[in-house]
Amino acid sequence: MNTSPSTYEAQRLDASKLTYSYTTSPRPVPDEATLASSDETICTDHMIIVSWKAKSGWSAPELKPYGPLSLFPSASCLHYAHECFEGLKAYRGYDGKIRLFRPDCNGRRFKMSAERISLPSIDPEELEKLMVALLSVDSPKWLPKHHAGQFLYVRPTIIGSNAQLAAVAPTEALMYIIVGFMPRMDMPPGGKRLLTSPDDMVRAWVGGFGYAKVGANYGPTVTASQDAYRRGFHQILWLYGENGECTEAGASNFFVLWRRKDGAKELITAPLDDRLILNGVTRRSCLELVRQRLRDVEVTERKFTIGELLEAAEDNRLLESFSAGTAWFICPVSKVQHRDREINIPMGSDGGPGEITATIKGWLEDIMYGRCEHEWGVVVPEKESENCTL
Amino acid sequence: MNTSPSTYEAQRLDASKLTYSYTTSPRPVPDEATLASSDETICTDHMIIVSWKAKSGWSAPELKPYGPLSLFPSASCLHYAHECFEGLKAYRGYDGKIRLFRPDCNGRRFKMSAERISLPSIDPEELEKLMVALLSVDSPKWLPKHHAGQFLYVRPTIIGSNAQLAAVAPTEALMYIIVGFMPRMDMPPGGKRLLTSPDDMVRAWVGGFGYAKVGANYGPTVTASQDAYRRGFHQILWLYGENGECTEAGASNFFVLWRRKDGAKELITAPLDDRLILNGVTRRSCLELVRQRLRDVEVTERKFTIGELLEAAEDNRLLESFSAGTAWFICPVSKVQHRDREINIPMGSDGGPGEITATIKGWLEDIMYGRCEHEWGVVVPEKESENCTL
Repeated sequence: MNTSPSTYEAQRLDASKLTYSYTTSPRPVPDEATLASSDETICTDHMIIVSWKAKSGWSAPELKPYGPLSLFPSASCLHYAHECFEGLKAYRGYDGKIRLFRPDCNGRRFKMSAERISLPSIDPEELEKLMVALLSVDSPKWLPKHHAGQFLYVRPTIIGSNAQLAAVAPTEALMYIIVGFMPRMDMPPGGKRLLTSPDDMVRAWVGGFGYAKVGANYGPTVTASQDAYRRGFHQILWLYGENGECTEAGASNFFVLWRRKDGAKELITAPLDDRLILNGVTRRSCLELVRQRLRDVEVTERKFTIGELLEAAEDNRLLESFSAGTAWFICPVSKVQHRDREINIPMGSDGGPGEITATIKGWLEDIMYGRCEHEWGVVVPEKESENCTL
Repeated sequence: MNTSPSTYEAQRLDASKLTYSYTTSPRPVPDEATLASSDETICTDHMIIVSWKAKSGWSAPELKPYGPLSLFPSASCLHYAHECFEGLKAYRGYDGKIRLFRPDCNGRRFKMSAERISLPSIDPEELEKLMVALLSVDSPKWLPKHHAGQFLYVRPTIIGSNAQLAAVAPTEALMYIIVGFMPRMDMPPGGKRLLTSPDDMVRAWVGGFGYAKVGANYGPTVTASQDAYRRGFHQILWLYGENGECTEAGASNFFVLWRRKDGAKELITAPLDDRLILNGVTRRSCLELVRQRLRDVEVTERKFTIGELLEAAEDNRLLESFSAGTAWFICPVSKVQHRDREINIPMGSDGGPGEITATIKGWLEDIMYGRCEHEWGVVVPEKESENCTL
């Protein structure tokens, strides 16, 4: 949509042109204590970076030592939020292999987000090759085989880098991929507690960009989230419209398992068609697996309101709830606070996730950590040279 | 010094601590041809930069050579749009002096924007002192006295610089001020042509952040703007809600002068109370001056719709229209295209702005360029040392 004729002749992103410059000062892999005490995201030894210009297209990708970027103070990413990203995990399987989970989905969404924010488009398959190339180099050291069941976090990013103080389509951009540590967040003690968004804070709106993974969806939500933290909640449950439709839980998709008034057991989540919410990879995987494997649970994507949630709670029809996303994975929700009303949602008998939530989570973990072979788990071949196992 | 948590006070922004490191490689001031052919914003020799940490507060401001910033790829400004800015002009007056126009208004808005996007707060008065300090050094060379009637553009910016992949309040930030050239945009031949926003593109919404000067308001609008450019328009007229309320024209405020049905001459613009639009400094100045000086024009801030504009056009009640902002200044609007309806708005007899538009513009220019003394025009004392007039 936003490609000028010349862009078609410009060089497309091409992973086969990747060059390698290994670090000469490898850093130590942090231990648990270091990770727990650090506010910063500790990244691996290398990153991949590719520059883009409107006239010439994408340059040859470079794998090089992780380090700071040099950006002019007038770079468009620093003024006009010309930035988009993706988030995936690389899982060290119980079979010793590293896997990505459905990276094709992230790639397609990355392309869509880039186009929405007027950044250059990318070929999702080339992005996947580059992520694999970077993990191939850094995984053996940073997520070694004896760390089965653990993960690294992969963050592809595109930023507008043209030094121009004007809200126009960037004529220069950088795409980069970094890999770092992220804490495990899927088991907060007692379950996740959500606070509904205040009336004067709306995350996204019809006609906006809530469906795209662009920076502009995140920073503006932080004041509301900080208020929720201070009040003892983990995240905001973002409501929308006069009727208080439940949309996202923080930066995760929000699921409720309830018994409908007709007695049917239903797993419900907000729909994609009004483009308010992110089309989550974990979200779609939950929906697909439950539709395939759980015949006694109806799966519904439709608008549902906080009023329906309150009513179901009063009727004792709430069975389980969870948020789904890459960062929080499948995280059971035990409480939703809406104004002065408290909605308590059952957890499992052991204080963990309820039965269906645990089942879905188990299925996904089996794929991610290689307990079962599945097309969604993409194995990353690893280099074992002396360059990358320092 | 007692630095225990209970009594610790983070350092506030303090312009009196400014240090000076002058450039040793001054750059040439670009000529008109260079400016016209450059996509980039050419900046002056120096910038001011101040770093902030949650624990210690603002560091001592530094005036130093203009040049690139070093940011980690995980810096929060590059992922979560933790960024806000201001835009002002420094005017070289016909009396030889440099002036800023109501910088206190920009300072207060900068503070509000920073707080809305979870960046550290600043004292507006200290910001003003820093802008004056930078212009004091760079104006003599970059906007010399024989350039009366011309201006430089001043861009204060705050960005989140903490290297953390998490949508939380930044624990580190940078504030900087840069000064550069911006083209004069207030007289497009034939007047400014606006295209109303398409149904699937909404700039801002009630409960959002349309009133704050944060990056998240700009990047997402560019796809619609680019489409408008391709179709021969200068900017989008952003409509809001089912009734098509007229909100902003591109990144400017939108004014209409019409004859009401009761015969009164009225200058109308969108209101601030629902927080959809930016509280423009030029906007407020127009309103204040017309209220003070034009007794036969009623000034109204209320919601008005594209339907009312169409009706006024049919009744031949449209007198003038202009957009108001720092970048576009007071720019006459000659046309609004809404779907298949074309609204033509009278211009002046000489093809320039209409009578009232020209009057307002003249008043503002008189203040900005020192033709009359006014409290809104803040004179910048200039240094004339050998360091800064290279």
